Amino acid sequence: MRVLALLDGTTVDPETPLVRVDDLGLLRGDGVFETVLVVDGRPRELGPHLDRLARSAAMLELPEPDRSGWERCVDAVINNWTGDRQMALKLVLTRGAEYGDGTPTAFAMGLPIGEKVLRQREQGISAVTLERGIDPGLAERAPWLLLGSKSLSYAVNMAALRHAAKLGADEVIFTASDGTVLEGPTSTVILVRGRTLITPPANIGILPGTTQAALFRAAERSGWSIKVEPVRTSDLTDNDGVFLVSSVRAITRVNSLDGQQLGDFSALHAELTALYESEY
Amino acid sequence: MRVLALLDGTTVDPETPLVRVDDLGLLRGDGVFETVLVVDGRPRELGPHLDRLARSAAMLELPEPDRSGWERCVDAVINNWTGDRQMALKLVLTRGAEYGDGTPTAFAMGLPIGEKVLRQREQGISAVTLERGIDPGLAERAPWLLLGSKSLSYAVNMAALRHAAKLGADEVIFTASDGTVLEGPTSTVILVRGRTLITPPANIGILPGTTQAALFRAAERSGWSIKVEPVRTSDLTDNDGVFLVSSVRAITRVNSLDGQQLGDFSALHAELTALYESEY
Repeated sequence: MRVLALLDGTTVDPETPLVRVDDLGLLRGDGVFETVLVVDGRPRELGPHLDRLARSAAMLELPEPDRSGWERCVDAVINNWTGDRQMALKLVLTRGAEYGDGTPTAFAMGLPIGEKVLRQREQGISAVTLERGIDPGLAERAPWLLLGSKSLSYAVNMAALRHAAKLGADEVIFTASDGTVLEGPTSTVILVRGRTLITPPANIGILPGTTQAALFRAAERSGWSIKVEPVRTSDLTDNDGVFLVSSVRAITRVNSLDGQQLGDFSALHAELTALYESEY
Repeated sequence: MRVLALLDGTTVDPETPLVRVDDLGLLRGDGVFETVLVVDGRPRELGPHLDRLARSAAMLELPEPDRSGWERCVDAVINNWTGDRQMALKLVLTRGAEYGDGTPTAFAMGLPIGEKVLRQREQGISAVTLERGIDPGLAERAPWLLLGSKSLSYAVNMAALRHAAKLGADEVIFTASDGTVLEGPTSTVILVRGRTLITPPANIGILPGTTQAALFRAAERSGWSIKVEPVRTSDLTDNDGVFLVSSVRAITRVNSLDGQQLGDFSALHAELTALYESEY
């Protein structure tokens, strides 16, 4: 089950070729995307996702996304979905055809959530730290590196996940050259210390997390403290819980890091998941 | 005038959508490419370009490119080309559709060479140095960063060129965090000192240049010395010539760097261009 829709609200067969070979999204990875979780026909954090799509587009100097078009397109996918209760909804915006009329390419695609992700949500994951090769000041110093944008140029993120698999791990936590913790290839890192949730600040060159923000909102309302501050690699093994969160994976606990078993975070996982779910 | 061909040697209308929205080349920048210069129906350095396509594919763990298919596809474009004497021939290989049968997407596209590039070949360019945010040891330490692969994830290269344009410059020379000179977003850096040509080594995380290799081959035969060794940012203003070379731009002299006028490299440009052309 897949549903593909365009900004005018029409749906298209997802197996029909839709994109020209000179699309700059294809030739140059020159575009942006978002992945939204939809549960029982309701998209979660759609506003923040569309805000972030606009922010990424601005970083790439793409035209400002047509917000009402995106809302129409999202509705079209949801209204035509007859699959499982949960859907991953991908929004893609590219600079369009190099030899075209300048119209951006834009579509939304509803996809089933894979068995593996559903299992990882329940059972947690193993992760390895991998160097991302940047320093935390770089994003502000060098905006042309697009650090913290959700661009279509994700070959490195995919290669890092393949590298992790070769090391026997499910996931990656990227670190900066000075040992600062960054993010996962498609997720945000959250640490727990007592009744405090901690996540690294976006200005070190990482993506501000929509799921992390939703969880922090719910946690703060329930009496947790929240901190957005630099995290060191050593902090990853000196805490009361480590989680990778993203729209599709939700709150996933990290069971082992670089081959070392971490604590049993299952009670904490249940508590944070309940907090996150209480938002919807 | 554009000509699009597939690996089976058939040609397709380049304006007809050919690519599915779930192609991983589009969704993840997960693929590789090459750009070959074709003059009077003869592709230059096709062997080295296909070698480098295979090398990039291996770095991304894509299936090994079907070499005879690529040769057939290149022939098809050239045989159907009725445009100018010179053509830019782009070869694109992606991981294929995420929900497909695992077949890679592969095509070659012949394109005219823009007026701007032709003018820059004659008149030279202005360049700015921009930090790439990596250190020279990173490529060997962290293969998952795909440094030195010609992947489709080129959003940063395009953003750097836009940043240069805002600074009033035509081109970019990327530098490493320790001041080592890397490469242009789509070109190789060559320095001249007396009768010696110098270019940085590929193992610092840059693409080995096909045009640079052809020029060095011709130069060595004509009595020049050639060196492949680290270049410092300060070397860019302390030399007898600075050039950016690539298949489509050929040998282009750098007239100014970071707003500072460099020497007049036009005689040297003529000499190096004649050397390079003597290869064909």
